[in-house]
Amino acid sequence: MKVLVLTSGGVDSTTCLAMMVAEHGKDNVVALSVSYGQKHAKELEASMKIAKYYGVEHIYLNLSEIFKYSDCSLLEHSDDEIPHESYAEQIDKSDGKPVSTYVPFRNGLFLASAASIAISKGCEIIYYGAHSDDAAGNAYPDCSESFNRAMNEAICEGSGGQVRIEAPFVSWTKKDVVKKGLELNVPYELTWSCYEGKDKPCGVCGTCIDRQQAFNLNGVTDPLVLK
Amino acid sequence: MKVLVLTSGGVDSTTCLAMMVAEHGKDNVVALSVSYGQKHAKELEASMKIAKYYGVEHIYLNLSEIFKYSDCSLLEHSDDEIPHESYAEQIDKSDGKPVSTYVPFRNGLFLASAASIAISKGCEIIYYGAHSDDAAGNAYPDCSESFNRAMNEAICEGSGGQVRIEAPFVSWTKKDVVKKGLELNVPYELTWSCYEGKDKPCGVCGTCIDRQQAFNLNGVTDPLVLK
Repeated sequence: MKVLVLTSGGVDSTTCLAMMVAEHGKDNVVALSVSYGQKHAKELEASMKIAKYYGVEHIYLNLSEIFKYSDCSLLEHSDDEIPHESYAEQIDKSDGKPVSTYVPFRNGLFLASAASIAISKGCEIIYYGAHSDDAAGNAYPDCSESFNRAMNEAICEGSGGQVRIEAPFVSWTKKDVVKKGLELNVPYELTWSCYEGKDKPCGVCGTCIDRQQAFNLNGVTDPLVLK
Repeated sequence: MKVLVLTSGGVDSTTCLAMMVAEHGKDNVVALSVSYGQKHAKELEASMKIAKYYGVEHIYLNLSEIFKYSDCSLLEHSDDEIPHESYAEQIDKSDGKPVSTYVPFRNGLFLASAASIAISKGCEIIYYGAHSDDAAGNAYPDCSESFNRAMNEAICEGSGGQVRIEAPFVSWTKKDVVKKGLELNVPYELTWSCYEGKDKPCGVCGTCIDRQQAFNLNGVTDPLVLK
């Protein structure tokens, strides 16, 4: 069986890719990376290195056209500052609404694109690395279990039963994801999570804070920070 | 309230656009047209003329990158012939599977793109012109009521309740759609449905056959054929 893995170059999707290569073999895994007009290309570069490391076919898609009407702070054309606080702090302030780093229906578009390409490539399952931390407090509504369930049904129905979604981490914390990845010797030094595109991770944006915490809770230092 | 209408330049979506302009006023309607790598640009040209006719904002999106791995006969890079037979005949031969003119998860991608742009543009509802004829026999599984229901839930959940889908024709036949459009004086001479991109509609592809029949059942001749 062939599967497709959505890869962003970050910790979660790289761990997911490692699991799938271990389970299905590299020739049965297609990696798909989607650019949505981020302020930098570090994530894409990381996803290319990781696909090469695992020897899997890698497809790159640029969907930035779709997001050019959004004022999300992650986007290249936005003048808004990327918040320097943890997700938990952002969620506290957001009053149950999506946070300023919510890219409109991004995961919906990633999964719809993945469904189309999976059908064309003969892949039966789309794997992606959404986990429970991201869905907390409705900060990223397109990471929730209810979204995943509905999107999976839409993809099953709309493909005539050819494809379905699996989000193996949907009830895991980021700490659990890193624990699994450490067991699989994931090359985390090749990954990139920071919202800023500098030489080294900034250490103060939401994703840097959560990433470091996930490594610390596993009793190790993030290899990217050690580099 | 602002709404977004998916427009292809064909009969169904143009009728849907006419209904929305009548209901909400032209300044509250955004039209979105998506190219997916068709063999010709006649549909897009038609959708531009129609948006201009109704005086609504028109957004054009090119998603052909996503579909370049598909061998669907409608796509520019495919050498396959577009079938010269009605949908009913194609469905009879397809044995419950999608027909050769099924573009992988196309409507899923259209709706996911529409959801993202609707959020950015402050539109609360996405309207699109799927109708019951297209869903018959699972020929186009991404036109079915069960797909629409699931996709609507995915979009509601994934947008944090900001957007939902309405498919007003989902239980109508194409004959019913044309009946409604004739009441609204839709300029059908500006629309384009034929899968081929010639000067005049070919008259023998599935969409030409169904279109002419829908006009004939309403006792009128298709104004595009009269032109």
